[in-house]
Amino acid sequence: MTSRIYKCQGALLNARGECQFRVWAPFRENVTLLLPGSRENTYPMQRDEEGYWEVLVAGIRPGALYYYLLDGTLQRPDPASRNQPEGVHGPSAVTDPAAFTFTDDHWTGMRLEEMIIYELHTGAFTPEGTLQGIISRLPALLELGITAIEIMPLAQCPGRRNWGYDGVYPFALHNAYGSADDLKELVNTAHALGLAVILDVVYNHQGPEGNYLQDYGPYFTDRYCTPWGQAINFDGAWSDAVRAFYIQNALMWLDEFHMDGLRLDAVHAYWDSSALHVVQELAEAVQQLEARTGKKKVLIGETDLNNPRYINPVEKGGYGLHGQWADEFHHALHSRLTGERNGYYEDFGCLSQLAAAFEHAYVYTGQYSPHRKRRFGALPEHNPYSQFVVFAQNHDQVGNRMLGERLGALLPFEALKLAAATVLLSPFVPLLFMGEEYGERRPFLFFTSHGDPQLISALQAGRKREFAAFHAGGEAPDPQSLQTFQASVLSWDMQSPDNAALLACYRFLIDFRKNRPALRNDRREGTRVHAVLNDALLVLEREDEHSQDRLLILFNFDRQEQVWHSAGMQPV
Amino acid sequence: MTSRIYKCQGALLNARGECQFRVWAPFRENVTLLLPGSRENTYPMQRDEEGYWEVLVAGIRPGALYYYLLDGTLQRPDPASRNQPEGVHGPSAVTDPAAFTFTDDHWTGMRLEEMIIYELHTGAFTPEGTLQGIISRLPALLELGITAIEIMPLAQCPGRRNWGYDGVYPFALHNAYGSADDLKELVNTAHALGLAVILDVVYNHQGPEGNYLQDYGPYFTDRYCTPWGQAINFDGAWSDAVRAFYIQNALMWLDEFHMDGLRLDAVHAYWDSSALHVVQELAEAVQQLEARTGKKKVLIGETDLNNPRYINPVEKGGYGLHGQWADEFHHALHSRLTGERNGYYEDFGCLSQLAAAFEHAYVYTGQYSPHRKRRFGALPEHNPYSQFVVFAQNHDQVGNRMLGERLGALLPFEALKLAAATVLLSPFVPLLFMGEEYGERRPFLFFTSHGDPQLISALQAGRKREFAAFHAGGEAPDPQSLQTFQASVLSWDMQSPDNAALLACYRFLIDFRKNRPALRNDRREGTRVHAVLNDALLVLEREDEHSQDRLLILFNFDRQEQVWHSAGMQPV
Repeated sequence: MTSRIYKCQGALLNARGECQFRVWAPFRENVTLLLPGSRENTYPMQRDEEGYWEVLVAGIRPGALYYYLLDGTLQRPDPASRNQPEGVHGPSAVTDPAAFTFTDDHWTGMRLEEMIIYELHTGAFTPEGTLQGIISRLPALLELGITAIEIMPLAQCPGRRNWGYDGVYPFALHNAYGSADDLKELVNTAHALGLAVILDVVYNHQGPEGNYLQDYGPYFTDRYCTPWGQAINFDGAWSDAVRAFYIQNALMWLDEFHMDGLRLDAVHAYWDSSALHVVQELAEAVQQLEARTGKKKVLIGETDLNNPRYINPVEKGGYGLHGQWADEFHHALHSRLTGERNGYYEDFGCLSQLAAAFEHAYVYTGQYSPHRKRRFGALPEHNPYSQFVVFAQNHDQVGNRMLGERLGALLPFEALKLAAATVLLSPFVPLLFMGEEYGERRPFLFFTSHGDPQLISALQAGRKREFAAFHAGGEAPDPQSLQTFQASVLSWDMQSPDNAALLACYRFLIDFRKNRPALRNDRREGTRVHAVLNDALLVLEREDEHSQDRLLILFNFDRQEQVWHSAGMQPV
Repeated sequence: MTSRIYKCQGALLNARGECQFRVWAPFRENVTLLLPGSRENTYPMQRDEEGYWEVLVAGIRPGALYYYLLDGTLQRPDPASRNQPEGVHGPSAVTDPAAFTFTDDHWTGMRLEEMIIYELHTGAFTPEGTLQGIISRLPALLELGITAIEIMPLAQCPGRRNWGYDGVYPFALHNAYGSADDLKELVNTAHALGLAVILDVVYNHQGPEGNYLQDYGPYFTDRYCTPWGQAINFDGAWSDAVRAFYIQNALMWLDEFHMDGLRLDAVHAYWDSSALHVVQELAEAVQQLEARTGKKKVLIGETDLNNPRYINPVEKGGYGLHGQWADEFHHALHSRLTGERNGYYEDFGCLSQLAAAFEHAYVYTGQYSPHRKRRFGALPEHNPYSQFVVFAQNHDQVGNRMLGERLGALLPFEALKLAAATVLLSPFVPLLFMGEEYGERRPFLFFTSHGDPQLISALQAGRKREFAAFHAGGEAPDPQSLQTFQASVLSWDMQSPDNAALLACYRFLIDFRKNRPALRNDRREGTRVHAVLNDALLVLEREDEHSQDRLLILFNFDRQEQVWHSAGMQPV
């Protein structure tokens, strides 16, 4: 394992009241620090051999605004800004990383296999739409029984309302949500309650508005295509500093913010032909952080490649992530529950596919996929079940539908309980999407508040085009409209009889999962699919490592009663 | 390991005198076989569900010409043609794969560690420029002592003169060189003499002229960039048939032509994000062929990524190639010998880098490369030395120079002997480039004989641009000129005193390599670099597995005498 020193970019206040400004701009002739409003307001910076420019300035206070002036002409915010008080186009602001005092020394992190994850969007989770709003609901989540929250991306995005995947300042907390100290307070409070915190981070692209990275250096490449714009330059000339930028970002959240883990968005789109893949380099940097701090950290990749390489250990040629999202478990479950066969659900729909997902986490392990029109995937033979995060819903699976319908709006009450049990009694790491626990019926729609008119119309047209294939009729809601966002905020209606009953069911299942040894075994031999009958009944056996505790779980996906005889029970 | 059936494309004569025509064209409405000249000359073909079109026709003779008619409008040669008697734009011709009778049943192949490889270009190797020409020189090669010949690509290219990397019919033998049966005779004769035969194959792109693949189906993709044109579609929709096309091609050379191995050109440009990488799929298909036939086959990748993944075993997360070219051994040797520092030689020049290459095969194993402007490579810790093919010259390193100078034209006589010893006494698999053994002074230039005027001028302009960086002055020879080719044909001057002396030296070194146990040990612990003195003297120790035979080898890269005391000898 290589041990690398990653140079920090950004404005870093030290204990002596000095601020170290450092920014990477290898092709610029000169870079100047600009402090608008102060008397002596420009500071020429010194370049080192790697192309980082530095200047140390005394007497800087937290909150001080600054820009960089590139080659005397371009005035730009800091790519590694910690705070953009006026949004993506405004000045950057200095923060004091040491201002907040953590009290979570006792906390040593949480292993992935202990996690029951609750995914939430800061803006839509509470009426306040802030980090403080999340803090106020932590006791409710504790009561539900989940053990970890996963927060959708918090990097500064254009406008106030955004899912988070349009972030353009990976180090800055989105200004609509509160301050960096609010986030630290959230993590500190969670840890006090015994909850872990995972942050969703986006290192495969930058958002389309307010992205000034290309003015600083070769952050992007045209060697690869991504659906979201230019690919990040992880393997071309000058890529060391680009890799360092994102790895430093990961280390900031994990170290300075005490995050317990990161969910790496679309890790299959980290295009990198280097001998040391950037995902592996990131995983190794995090391992070194763990060794240094004694705190457990988890890295979970979102990947749709059905390729165990991402989660295999480095000595087996893997990239060393702890876990990954297992989308196909969702697809198999969703399509069987809803009967939907459009889009990628074309590849799913039989209960036997859900059985396959119970066995391998992936459904496609090398077979021909009609939707992809090619053979797809590989068998994750040596990976314990706890390396896979499964869900009946998540922000993408709900929000990428034209009308953003949650299962609560698509399925009858009994089916919601079935979905909950399928996820929570599985040997995988379960993830709930905020509101799922009480059967929220409000949608989770795609919303933005971009400022660039051209981008807005392109986005609106794009959404309509995208849904031509998915939905026969109806109009896609306007992502820019305030209403679209407001319609997506949780109702917190836990009192209606069905909602209360479903919540009780979730609480029971979570409690059951935590306390039955059979359900705590993540080894592959601890879970057996016994039968799939009439495309309706799925019979699952689970047992603990010592075969002391055994459970036979019968999932009935039909309205009809199913009859099954356990005599002569054979694994399928 | 998956065992897949790969459908053959092409025109395959069977023992009953019928010919099975099969071609993949998934988006075509209809495909018709066209036999120009015969009376009833069109045969409608039937499509199967994968998009292959077939027809079985009786009474077809070897040599029969044919085209396919696509959607009633486009008349095209067969992408899997075995013979293009009139070149890349003309009709395809049926061949009889069973016409030649091999007599090499005794031959079971050769392990990579036994190979001393001789790379040759069919057109420039002999005055005849044919496969028969090669056959006539096999006894001379046997006398030299090499154990394997590696033939530059033989696929049908545009025109008569071409290096081979512009091939557009991977299954057809280039018509200027002779027939498929000539190639079989060559392999059969080589085996009778105890020589193995390796073929260079190009699966990362198709040549620029006469490439009709895109008329048949989605063979290409724009998701990745290559320097040589469109990337092959190894991972998009419909890619199963594309992968099968190239894997079938590999199997044809290895099985039907009895080739002992393949050199895979630029395997780093096989862009593939699939869970089962196409290189691994190819390696597994070849392993199955070996199991079926009992004949050893070797796969050697050309890759410049310094990434041991390509040659690691599948169970260690590798792709399972047997070996790879180790370009950096060359670069370290060449730049130290010649003093050249232009282009990629910028990264080399110190003798300590050659010492590093002796230790790890790669020079850059994670360090910063000034030429690439990023950290580069990884350490191949667990790979025996025999997985790396090294050379003082090869077609690329000679021919990609503006003036195509071989070492014989660049270095004094003594330095040529030093280069030979460095390669042949190394623990790696040595490769000689034709003519190197007697110090050929003729160049090996880049030559083509394209027919497309636009392509020709683009190519001529491109060569000039390319060499702007490499050479300060002079004109790049015209690749299209017949003279450029003729100047590159070997002189076979083995009589001049220096040439005869060098040849004797090569023979001695090869013989010594074959017979000294210390030189036959490919384990990493059998080779130790003891010292690098004054950037002039490299001291290498080699021993056999049982430490019975030990050799101390002193390479002096300076004109001055070097003094070195072995007392207190410590590994560096």
